[in-house]
Amino acid sequence: MSSKKKPQKLKARLPRGLSDRDPAEIAATRRMIETIRTVYERYGFEPVETPAFEYTDALGKFLPDQDRPNEGVFSFQDDDEQWLSLRYDLTAPLARYVAENFETLPKPYRSYRQGWVFRNEKPGPGRFRQFMQFDADTVGSGSPAADAEMCMMAADTMEALGIPRGSYVVKVNNRKVLDGLMESIGLGGEENAGRRLTVLRAVDKLDRLGGEGVRLLLGKGRWDGGEEGKGDFTKGAGLSEKQIEDVFFVSGGHCTSWVTFANREELPTADEFTLSLERLHNEFGMLVDSPSGEVCFSNDQVISGWRDHLSDTDVGKAGLEELTKIVSLVRSAGYGSKRIRVASDVVRGLEYYTGPVFEVELTFPIEDEKGNPVRFGSVGGGGRYDGLVSRFRGEPVPATGFSIGVSRLLAALRHLKKIEDKPAAGPVVVTVFDRDPVRLADYQRMVQRLRDAPLDPQEPDGPRIRAELYLGNPKNVPNQFKYADRRKSPCVIIQGGDEKNNPAGPHVLVKDLILGAELAREESDHDAYLQRQAEAQQLVPEEKLIEAVRAVLSRHNVTWE
Amino acid sequence: MSSKKKPQKLKARLPRGLSDRDPAEIAATRRMIETIRTVYERYGFEPVETPAFEYTDALGKFLPDQDRPNEGVFSFQDDDEQWLSLRYDLTAPLARYVAENFETLPKPYRSYRQGWVFRNEKPGPGRFRQFMQFDADTVGSGSPAADAEMCMMAADTMEALGIPRGSYVVKVNNRKVLDGLMESIGLGGEENAGRRLTVLRAVDKLDRLGGEGVRLLLGKGRWDGGEEGKGDFTKGAGLSEKQIEDVFFVSGGHCTSWVTFANREELPTADEFTLSLERLHNEFGMLVDSPSGEVCFSNDQVISGWRDHLSDTDVGKAGLEELTKIVSLVRSAGYGSKRIRVASDVVRGLEYYTGPVFEVELTFPIEDEKGNPVRFGSVGGGGRYDGLVSRFRGEPVPATGFSIGVSRLLAALRHLKKIEDKPAAGPVVVTVFDRDPVRLADYQRMVQRLRDAPLDPQEPDGPRIRAELYLGNPKNVPNQFKYADRRKSPCVIIQGGDEKNNPAGPHVLVKDLILGAELAREESDHDAYLQRQAEAQQLVPEEKLIEAVRAVLSRHNVTWE
Repeated sequence: MSSKKKPQKLKARLPRGLSDRDPAEIAATRRMIETIRTVYERYGFEPVETPAFEYTDALGKFLPDQDRPNEGVFSFQDDDEQWLSLRYDLTAPLARYVAENFETLPKPYRSYRQGWVFRNEKPGPGRFRQFMQFDADTVGSGSPAADAEMCMMAADTMEALGIPRGSYVVKVNNRKVLDGLMESIGLGGEENAGRRLTVLRAVDKLDRLGGEGVRLLLGKGRWDGGEEGKGDFTKGAGLSEKQIEDVFFVSGGHCTSWVTFANREELPTADEFTLSLERLHNEFGMLVDSPSGEVCFSNDQVISGWRDHLSDTDVGKAGLEELTKIVSLVRSAGYGSKRIRVASDVVRGLEYYTGPVFEVELTFPIEDEKGNPVRFGSVGGGGRYDGLVSRFRGEPVPATGFSIGVSRLLAALRHLKKIEDKPAAGPVVVTVFDRDPVRLADYQRMVQRLRDAPLDPQEPDGPRIRAELYLGNPKNVPNQFKYADRRKSPCVIIQGGDEKNNPAGPHVLVKDLILGAELAREESDHDAYLQRQAEAQQLVPEEKLIEAVRAVLSRHNVTWE
Repeated sequence: MSSKKKPQKLKARLPRGLSDRDPAEIAATRRMIETIRTVYERYGFEPVETPAFEYTDALGKFLPDQDRPNEGVFSFQDDDEQWLSLRYDLTAPLARYVAENFETLPKPYRSYRQGWVFRNEKPGPGRFRQFMQFDADTVGSGSPAADAEMCMMAADTMEALGIPRGSYVVKVNNRKVLDGLMESIGLGGEENAGRRLTVLRAVDKLDRLGGEGVRLLLGKGRWDGGEEGKGDFTKGAGLSEKQIEDVFFVSGGHCTSWVTFANREELPTADEFTLSLERLHNEFGMLVDSPSGEVCFSNDQVISGWRDHLSDTDVGKAGLEELTKIVSLVRSAGYGSKRIRVASDVVRGLEYYTGPVFEVELTFPIEDEKGNPVRFGSVGGGGRYDGLVSRFRGEPVPATGFSIGVSRLLAALRHLKKIEDKPAAGPVVVTVFDRDPVRLADYQRMVQRLRDAPLDPQEPDGPRIRAELYLGNPKNVPNQFKYADRRKSPCVIIQGGDEKNNPAGPHVLVKDLILGAELAREESDHDAYLQRQAEAQQLVPEEKLIEAVRAVLSRHNVTWE
């Protein structure tokens, strides 16, 4: 092979919107998933997994991005010309699975799964075209108890992961309530489907745009830049002032939070803010959570407010009844409004939801790209999708589920420092000081001895020592140490001619790299440095190799899973 | 929603060549992967993962199925018209990753990864279009010690998984030896590339077709049905008798095994077979492994045989030298010919291999579809691919790796009963005997108490009790028990009006389903049956619920991870 640069070499590049995962992320994800799995199994859910792609028609078109009807999913053709698509979520494939195996599955069927999903979208910051979801679903139960359980399980999962109570909230809403609202303001019927979607999308943006932005989207439209002519123009739903007020009330536009304030141009001072919080609490009886700046109605207040507005529509009434049952069930199981809260701004983008919808929000503030405080926001959600399995069965099959965005949640845990995400210590590196095949075999045997040795001699079946032979070019000795440093090896083993031919029998040098680095930082005087460096380097008879390595590992509390 | 069958309902069907995974398979795979991971990390490998698809040009075309040049992979177009392909293995994406992050990675770079790969092939029995691989790779080392280590790690992995020594063999060959062979029989040069491929493919089929079949493929061609006009005709390489003999010798056609015998028409009797084994051992000094019927040359015999045939080609000599070093390194680390064996019939399908190639074969016999004994066969393989990273870098970057076929290996472990693949016990089911919302909340609270209770009171942080509320239609009481049976629940909790209103305070019935089933099998007399059934059903005060459930769980040694 020629070492000259070839003119036509390929460019190595990760496709846009995808990411590689490093050891720390892989290990942290594994730990997180184990915890979620433990909670889900405690709730009686069992694992089941489907493949990465399905027949396109089986997945259906339920993605929020209806503007691009043929997009959103990655599709390709089979050799017999059938269309296949990469799954865009884990729910649609589950519906196919349940429908296909309906007769043999226990019903209600509780299952969970974890896997990659794929979206053919414009990638952006934090917006990936492949991401991992962790879902739980109960198929075959129309009971609000199944929905209530999803909410409780979501709350339990957050706490099991170390997210403190008060730093998360599981929000519940109901599509039927939203449908009732639409009907009550004259947007019922098939002919208004498009406008309903525009209204729901506007409501969905309450967190991001604040009340004023949403009002504009409900009415005449909004310029992305915040003022006329600035940025792109998003067409509004064209509602009247009265309709906007109704939507605004029922969809919770009157609830507010510190973040909503902070996104407004007339940013309140801290004093003004506290004052407003107090007024909201005293005059309106709203829930006020000072640390997070969260202000909202209690579950009962929201529901009774809605009752006044929606009691004239059947669908709205049905939605309210479901919500009331969910609220009562979670309350009697000990989950109050602080943990599971009726929230009118939860819409959820996927079109297959038919009743209760949920969203888990982390309420602690982080900084956005411009340094402004924003809530961490949603790490998962779900809802009831009574029509999805029915598409295949031709009979009603109620179902409800909940999905966690694994990467988002991991980012949150890292932010909160609730997960170990340092990579484990590297292996012990046996260096190569002699390229002779016989000597190479000697070194290889040392590696083998290390790998065969348990970390703790008291635990012969416990974890063993991680070790490797340096496999690069051995001529360049400093490279071997540099390599061991980069691998974060706790120590290296050296056996040159002097050690090998020691009159007292073959010896090895065990060099403690962690101690070495510490000493190097402490000492500045050259001679003292050299002397103390020697302390970090122990000459031991070859048969004492394991003991000497164990001493270094235990000195630095190195453990391997 | 109407309960009438809709005329146009969708058909729920898993696409061909894909599979869903059930709880037992998911749990067994997880355990297996944990074991493999432990071995790999002990060898100093660290995890890194790439996404499911890449730019098509980055993956290159290295699949064996060159007959269908645009097939073999699933491809689709990006919104900016760039072609993307689902990865067909984990090696090509790793090459992209290393090339893209070359400056920041330690070198040699040892990494491992597990993931799904996709092949656009005609699906068949045991031939899937999505399957899982578990790979380890060392990039940046051209040393045969890196290849030797792959072989040792493969052997260690098999033993860590419980596959006994003697039931597996890691076979090593070298593409350069095969190239030397081609050159020595006059098939060198660019113009013979097609014929070389035909020859290599023929050799690759030795295990399946036996010596005669391979001879035909090397010569005038072969009818799939075994005789003229029967089945499809596969064109041969058109070699002369002398060329065939040479290929046959060097490629190990003279080595044989019980399975090869068994596939021949003149099946030997057991006596004849033992006799032949003895002759092969005594007259030719071959290795004979009676239990598996394996007969082959020792590593030294194979290499010295090759030396006679190939010493006249540079490439052959280079290959032999690499093999000799690998054999010497593994031997000095204590791995003999029984575990790691030079085997001339290992070719490996992927085109990117440039030197040593490996294959892990399980040697115990299983029955094929016709009931004939066959070796279990390959569960993984790999080799050196010095050109793959270089495609991006324009400079030589040697690399070697090893890939496990996860599903194949799992099938082997299941066959050997070396892995727990029973699903865990189901959850405790709290049944619903009263649909009143207040009572439903009571039941929900019982579930909650169970889930909050550690399985073992001595271990408050240990696993907790798995429990759930029955979420189906509660009117049908027998359905609730049927459900619990199907979920393999150890016990159900019942609280009807009698129990609730017990004069001594609220009680619950704890019904031991495992004991109940046992008693039902033992007794045939109706009255006795009913009486003993009652023994499996305990009435306890509600506050003793946890203790009573724990008693059932411990009676049946129910543990949850």
